[in-house]
Amino acid sequence: MNSPMNSDTWLLLRHTVRFGDTDAAGVMHFARLLEWCHQAYEESLERYGLAAAMVFPTPGHSLAVALPIVHCSADFQRPLICGDPLAIQLEPRRLDAGSFEVRYRFSNNGTAAAQGLTRHLAIASDSRQRCNLPASINRWLEASALGNGVQPLS
Amino acid sequence: MNSPMNSDTWLLLRHTVRFGDTDAAGVMHFARLLEWCHQAYEESLERYGLAAAMVFPTPGHSLAVALPIVHCSADFQRPLICGDPLAIQLEPRRLDAGSFEVRYRFSNNGTAAAQGLTRHLAIASDSRQRCNLPASINRWLEASALGNGVQPLS
Amino acid sequence: MNSPMNSDTWLLLRHTVRFGDTDAAGVMHFARLLEWCHQAYEESLERYGLAAAMVFPTPGHSLAVALPIVHCSADFQRPLICGDPLAIQLEPRRLDAGSFEVRYRFSNNGTAAAQGLTRHLAIASDSRQRCNLPASINRWLEASALGNGVQPLS
Amino acid sequence: MNSPMNSDTWLLLRHTVRFGDTDAAGVMHFARLLEWCHQAYEESLERYGLAAAMVFPTPGHSLAVALPIVHCSADFQRPLICGDPLAIQLEPRRLDAGSFEVRYRFSNNGTAAAQGLTRHLAIASDSRQRCNLPASINRWLEASALGNGVQPLS
Repeated sequence: MNSPMNSDTWLLLRHTVRFGDTDAAGVMHFARLLEWCHQAYEESLERYGLAAAMVFPTPGHSLAVALPIVHCSADFQRPLICGDPLAIQLEPRRLDAGSFEVRYRFSNNGTAAAQGLTRHLAIASDSRQRCNLPASINRWLEASALGNGVQPLS
Repeated sequence: MNSPMNSDTWLLLRHTVRFGDTDAAGVMHFARLLEWCHQAYEESLERYGLAAAMVFPTPGHSLAVALPIVHCSADFQRPLICGDPLAIQLEPRRLDAGSFEVRYRFSNNGTAAAQGLTRHLAIASDSRQRCNLPASINRWLEASALGNGVQPLS
Repeated sequence: MNSPMNSDTWLLLRHTVRFGDTDAAGVMHFARLLEWCHQAYEESLERYGLAAAMVFPTPGHSLAVALPIVHCSADFQRPLICGDPLAIQLEPRRLDAGSFEVRYRFSNNGTAAAQGLTRHLAIASDSRQRCNLPASINRWLEASALGNGVQPLS
Repeated sequence: MNSPMNSDTWLLLRHTVRFGDTDAAGVMHFARLLEWCHQAYEESLERYGLAAAMVFPTPGHSLAVALPIVHCSADFQRPLICGDPLAIQLEPRRLDAGSFEVRYRFSNNGTAAAQGLTRHLAIASDSRQRCNLPASINRWLEASALGNGVQPLS
């Protein structure tokens, strides 16, 4: 249903470096990249068809499963300046029944500029114990793996 | 050249509330609105045709005139939650030869949600004294005033 | 009980401008001032003796009254650079039975640099209607008014 | 000169979780940890005796060597809520003549809560090529290694 070509609609995103993302060195402040990663993760879910309220806590709408980030990292290859138009390629990957990670490749006019990673763990909201990923996230992970030409986990 | 209808392309923008914009009250953290305002100001200039490097300091590219914000304010009418799709209507206005302000009206599905304001002063980079607005900003201000059905300053 | 001299312990705070607070103009990014204001408000309540969980939502601890910000503003008198040591003078003021505001005066080595304002409204968490300020906040407001040499509201 | 006991004055810092650091899950937003890391790095240099302007770009004060972050990571062991008082233990380490990293261990009332890492590269401002670390940073690194009971690099 989701062909490799289609996955670009939710895995290939765009972002422009804004003035508030820079610091006095004149370039993007390093910690902003992780914020862009999370925004891209949210936009990807949204484009795939998962409304924010299905995945993220909103007032008056409790979730059975929380997906906190337990690890993140970033690598910076070249400075980014205000106005730079970025492409962000997302590579979501299921790690096991209860966790997944997303790799984010940032490029500027075709040149790799930076890379981010977030690792998420499924936690049952009531018991605070590890649990299985929600079905909605599994669908997004599987469709994304297909889209990347990767075999889905069986 | 810029008809009232066309001004929407650089004065009516979109933003989605992201998880990192919220706080533990479950809604948008108040200070984020001012960041969205500045991002909208940058996007408006860009859509109008002014590249970021013409208005904002970038490495190795000095600007004759800086446009620091000397005042800002925000009013919050209703809470905004993660995933809310916002329309942002910008109303730039020249105050005098050396300053302008931008009003930002945020609405969520047609209902007014919040309003922001930034006031900018032209400062000559070499003397650090007040000076006239750059011609590029004056063009954007004038086109925007026309687009809003307001008479341009003569 | 709270003499004018003592109120300095919770109304006169310190903050150092950090690199992540600056932008590519080399100075503090305007929106950061509002974040510093809220941090100073939190630190003031804490120093006065009100634990964060009494005033701000924390997991598993519901509050009868929320105190959302309905208005904020800031004025910038001079640029602030990385490493600048700031003094912040807070002036909390009750507006009526259900609202208050806090003015924040930032100075750098005795010279006024910027000023912020946040206005807060008491909202009953269950009905989402306006209500009276919590007793704890009233105590802080009254002690702060005494400390500033202002007569408390009767 | 800098005994193990003394190094605590610049390697053991404090931070309180603030409301603006949280998200709608009620706990610290993951990306804020990296901002705290950089603030702790700045405070550590300052406490050791290196003024901000010696290490970070400030207007009108050019630096011969920039120290951009080329890699960062964070691990999150337990949620942090508004008001949590944190201790931050810094472990700076020289990697080679032109790079160093800092590990940041965050604990809450004696319990490990999170860990961050930033890796910095020395870049000559004029040539944009890799170069040796500035002498000031080397002094801080060496004194910190002594303080941690680690032998200094010879």
